[in-house]
Amino acid sequence: MGAIPTALVVGLGMPADVPVAWVDGLADGFREECALVGASVAGGDITRSELVVIGVTALGDLGGHAPVTRSGARPGQVVAFAGRLGYAAAGLALLEAGLEPEGGPLLEAVEGHRRPRPPYACGPEAARMGAAAMLDVSDGLLQDLGHVAAASGVGITLDPTAFPIGEPVAAAAKELGADPVEWVLTGGEDHALAAVFPPEVRLPPHWTVVGHVVEGAKVQVAGRTTGLGGWDHFRE
Amino acid sequence: MGAIPTALVVGLGMPADVPVAWVDGLADGFREECALVGASVAGGDITRSELVVIGVTALGDLGGHAPVTRSGARPGQVVAFAGRLGYAAAGLALLEAGLEPEGGPLLEAVEGHRRPRPPYACGPEAARMGAAAMLDVSDGLLQDLGHVAAASGVGITLDPTAFPIGEPVAAAAKELGADPVEWVLTGGEDHALAAVFPPEVRLPPHWTVVGHVVEGAKVQVAGRTTGLGGWDHFRE
Repeated sequence: MGAIPTALVVGLGMPADVPVAWVDGLADGFREECALVGASVAGGDITRSELVVIGVTALGDLGGHAPVTRSGARPGQVVAFAGRLGYAAAGLALLEAGLEPEGGPLLEAVEGHRRPRPPYACGPEAARMGAAAMLDVSDGLLQDLGHVAAASGVGITLDPTAFPIGEPVAAAAKELGADPVEWVLTGGEDHALAAVFPPEVRLPPHWTVVGHVVEGAKVQVAGRTTGLGGWDHFRE
Repeated sequence: MGAIPTALVVGLGMPADVPVAWVDGLADGFREECALVGASVAGGDITRSELVVIGVTALGDLGGHAPVTRSGARPGQVVAFAGRLGYAAAGLALLEAGLEPEGGPLLEAVEGHRRPRPPYACGPEAARMGAAAMLDVSDGLLQDLGHVAAASGVGITLDPTAFPIGEPVAAAAKELGADPVEWVLTGGEDHALAAVFPPEVRLPPHWTVVGHVVEGAKVQVAGRTTGLGGWDHFRE
């Protein structure tokens, strides 16, 4: 973590009857997303397959600096995130409930599921600011921070009231009678960045401090660590 | 082409019921093959899939030199190959004929199909010697040299009598009543290296000169370019 993205290598397997327009759309999507960071698809391979299979290797340039890994968190440091949390989980819940919103915050949640918006620039920024550990939130914040805690040999305590709830997440929770904080803490696929910083680092406003690194192990959510069995498997 | 292999990134999709021993065997194979060149599996990702799908990105280090591409061939240069040709095609033909050789050259052909032996060191060597174009022979020599001809805007003429026929290839051809030269010219999956060199380069004995670059287009096999319709699609 902390590299500037430079190129993708894409391996593509697909049946012979996949429409060319579908493949064109896939290529357009790769090109448009790469353009956001100045990268490009630099190569890959194509083969026939019974299923559509897409394998992507992303390459980046650390500019000679060491990568920011999962193992650098130390007690006393702060835990922060940048980007969106809970949007993709909210959008998926709406779609699974059979809803097809045509506008407003519910549509924004669905679009957050269909096309996440990773905060690309925040990775190199965090590295420059001295992040001690970092990863992207692909499996849910609690689970992914659990990887940091395990790799660093520390515990992490989160303050659930510190998380801003995006309007689309709040609207979807109201629509479905769900708990928006659960989506924020356990929903994956938004590809937010979670990072650990020394306490003296002054974070710009697009980073939100949500917890601290402590002695111990695993991830605790203050005030919600008991009686919410659904979260237990994220704290293994 | 011409880089020193450094690392593989492996994407692996598989059903949940794949035996662990199978996955261990796969990992062992990657490690053993990487050890031949001093590379290692540096990362990747795993996901569940209905089929076993393996996607590999190989990374290499050019040491600051420009890569040897397909587009550098010029008339007057010589075409040579290193490694094996026809072994994998001969081995596959034996297996498809229902033969299960237990030893001797027929088994060697089958093993050539099951585990190709790319001449890894010959790639950087060819680059150091000044190769003008190079690629590995994965789809068959005629087809792959056709890519060089097209990318370079030249023709290539091959001398079919210049190719050594490996004992396993000859034995399999005798067993099946097949033409060993066809396997050598059109068989893929041996991952030999084919390269084009300036005529003044003195090639070591593990490189065999088999043809020349000429003005024109496409790949011609001297004395066999007509009456062998099966090869036409390789010369498109």
